[in-house]
Amino acid sequence: MAQAAEPPSGTRDFLADDVRRRKAVFDTIGAVFERYGFDPLETPAFERLDVFAGKLGEEASALIFKILKRGIHEATGEADLALRYDHTVPLARVVGTYGSKLPSPYKRYTIGPVWRADRAAKGRFREFAQCDLDTVGSASPLADAEIVWAVHDGVAALGIEEFQFLVNSRQALHGLLEAYGIAAKLGDKVLGSLDKLDKTTPEAVVAELVNRGLPSTTAEGLVTDVTAPDTDRLRKQLDTTEHGRRGLADVDRLLELTAGLPVGRVVFTPRMVRGLDYYTGLIFEVAATGYPGSIASGGRYDSLVAKLGGPDVPACGGSIGIERILAIQTPHAADQRGLDVALTVLGAEADIMRLAGEIRTLGLRTGVYLGSSGKLAKQLQWANDQHARSVLIYGPEEQKTGEVTVRDMESGEQTRVPLPEAATHLRSAVRSRTNRMSPPV
Amino acid sequence: MAQAAEPPSGTRDFLADDVRRRKAVFDTIGAVFERYGFDPLETPAFERLDVFAGKLGEEASALIFKILKRGIHEATGEADLALRYDHTVPLARVVGTYGSKLPSPYKRYTIGPVWRADRAAKGRFREFAQCDLDTVGSASPLADAEIVWAVHDGVAALGIEEFQFLVNSRQALHGLLEAYGIAAKLGDKVLGSLDKLDKTTPEAVVAELVNRGLPSTTAEGLVTDVTAPDTDRLRKQLDTTEHGRRGLADVDRLLELTAGLPVGRVVFTPRMVRGLDYYTGLIFEVAATGYPGSIASGGRYDSLVAKLGGPDVPACGGSIGIERILAIQTPHAADQRGLDVALTVLGAEADIMRLAGEIRTLGLRTGVYLGSSGKLAKQLQWANDQHARSVLIYGPEEQKTGEVTVRDMESGEQTRVPLPEAATHLRSAVRSRTNRMSPPV
Repeated sequence: MAQAAEPPSGTRDFLADDVRRRKAVFDTIGAVFERYGFDPLETPAFERLDVFAGKLGEEASALIFKILKRGIHEATGEADLALRYDHTVPLARVVGTYGSKLPSPYKRYTIGPVWRADRAAKGRFREFAQCDLDTVGSASPLADAEIVWAVHDGVAALGIEEFQFLVNSRQALHGLLEAYGIAAKLGDKVLGSLDKLDKTTPEAVVAELVNRGLPSTTAEGLVTDVTAPDTDRLRKQLDTTEHGRRGLADVDRLLELTAGLPVGRVVFTPRMVRGLDYYTGLIFEVAATGYPGSIASGGRYDSLVAKLGGPDVPACGGSIGIERILAIQTPHAADQRGLDVALTVLGAEADIMRLAGEIRTLGLRTGVYLGSSGKLAKQLQWANDQHARSVLIYGPEEQKTGEVTVRDMESGEQTRVPLPEAATHLRSAVRSRTNRMSPPV
Repeated sequence: MAQAAEPPSGTRDFLADDVRRRKAVFDTIGAVFERYGFDPLETPAFERLDVFAGKLGEEASALIFKILKRGIHEATGEADLALRYDHTVPLARVVGTYGSKLPSPYKRYTIGPVWRADRAAKGRFREFAQCDLDTVGSASPLADAEIVWAVHDGVAALGIEEFQFLVNSRQALHGLLEAYGIAAKLGDKVLGSLDKLDKTTPEAVVAELVNRGLPSTTAEGLVTDVTAPDTDRLRKQLDTTEHGRRGLADVDRLLELTAGLPVGRVVFTPRMVRGLDYYTGLIFEVAATGYPGSIASGGRYDSLVAKLGGPDVPACGGSIGIERILAIQTPHAADQRGLDVALTVLGAEADIMRLAGEIRTLGLRTGVYLGSSGKLAKQLQWANDQHARSVLIYGPEEQKTGEVTVRDMESGEQTRVPLPEAATHLRSAVRSRTNRMSPPV
């Protein structure tokens, strides 16, 4: 009757090493956000379906997992609940629900799963963790800067060393279109083309822009200016329009307020475009050596909370692409957790259980042989499979003399110690080995 | 357009203090289980609907949240996925999926939400955390004893001091029915009545038994014997049948293997009955002073994994009722986390952001004023709302002399320190206060 079913398409089972590795990453980032005064928030896995109604675009709405009504209503085939698609719609709902009971501004982070019925593919999942932090209720440029700092520290805490914040502003993009005399109706498409400059050649983008109706001199000038190693010429252009000046001021303020980060970490990147109907002010994206695409992003979205059904408040936030980072980083040996101590069982079970209890109170990870073999060799094999560092043998011989044999599984060395001293002996043995094997962090 | 929607019926939003408190409890229990060599497991929030088919009783099946098919199949009104109802069905599926790739025996714990479309009521939720540990693939009595030890240490780690394991065995219950000459067809009902002895009077149970068809002398003898302060008479009765003897042997073996726990923690309780079609051997329940009902339970269920679609392997496990415990324990002050340091903003924003960064690298939880007021009084009010311990003022005065004012929010004391020394000064201030306020654990 055994079945060998995989988990549902697009989902994963996380066995021991995976759970430990993911938890370590989530806890590390959470601790960084806590240092910035962000508060954790956990909302239910599902929301009422009407909370999503009209809040997400058509494309996103099609990806929502809907939950069937229950009981006598099940037969209607209708849904009344939906698994959360992101952490932003629930945040807007929470801001609406609790209002002034929340701190002001409300700075919160959420690290947890969301569900999207996307076509499952390599590296794309239907259940995956998102890691968001947001400040709702502050229009201060310091709030934007704080998000950048916190994301910076989060990324750095994951051991990523070479990375850069590409920064731009929705206002600057608006000014850019004006300064280069691009018709309003072409605006979004032009920006869409510019957004490809991180993946494709300038020539290809120029060709696409011309194709979209831009005069070739405009297309060439625009692409040359936004990709120039220094932004002097572009800044002069932006300075000719009101939107451009405001955008530049936003960017320069951010650069000033993040001057305490390592040199070159935050860079004005005029070609960078993000979610056009989402962000209203500063936008950023984090590029890291060895990681394709961006590993974090964010910006200011002053009208979004209201659009999602919450009150009309300014807000900004960021998101770290933890699934992407986890997929690329190689697991550490530290994620594998063997037993510190394995106890064989050759009679005297009650004594062994008592001894195991004593060893555990010292904080050592301790396993007792639970199989059916009475043979030491087989039990040592089990201890080896468990990556045990020490094995404890309390066989008929040892029981006679009131001693215990402690076997170091690395060296094969065996020591006899009196039973009452076994626990403390093990602790010092495991400690000295830990010190030898891994230098303190 | 603001809406003030509550989360869906039977679910909860966990704001900062709740998340911290729950995480502390989950992490504490997880650390205990790790010491016992149990491995964490996380399965997807939903399983294929057919994984549940015929696995749960009719009552439980009605409580499953089913997920509607997507895309063009949505209109059929059919479901193909279901939110997990417990952690046991997914465990059986995982044992089937990974088989020999798992350690043997497979000792795993899972602490996380399950979903049941139960009628929402006070203290009963539709999304709630279950905390399970199970050993799959061992028939050894040491495996049962280990579950009891681990649950014991988990409960103790939550600060619960007065509690007791009530222990019985399915075999002993079987033997009990035989020894008292109770017809097989009455068996389950008689046990159901005995199970009420922790909530109702012996007289009421005797009456119910008679009502169910038992001769009154049998009913009285049975109730008297199973509730007697000592179990001598009952043991003699059990000793007259094969099932009874096997049950007694199971219980006595467990008592022997848990003799290392504090005296009186594990008690043979012949009247204790649990999930009749679930458990096959030892059963236990944990009663704690101040907690109505049981706060943990478990036992051996050798045929369950196969019944749930996994391979036919022996297994035993336990579960700690963490939601019940969380509901009764009063929140600690430690769950409330204010700011260690609040920085006011009166110009010199870039310096303040840099200083905040410096303070954070010392591990202090540090917030910067993100509001729009330029008034110190208003900013101090904000710092107070954030439960800040220290406030840092770097106003025009201080900027001139290159100093910073540090205000202790408890004493109201203010100290001027040179800007470059501000971070280290704060660290020692917060440290000495922490030492004063809470003794080390």
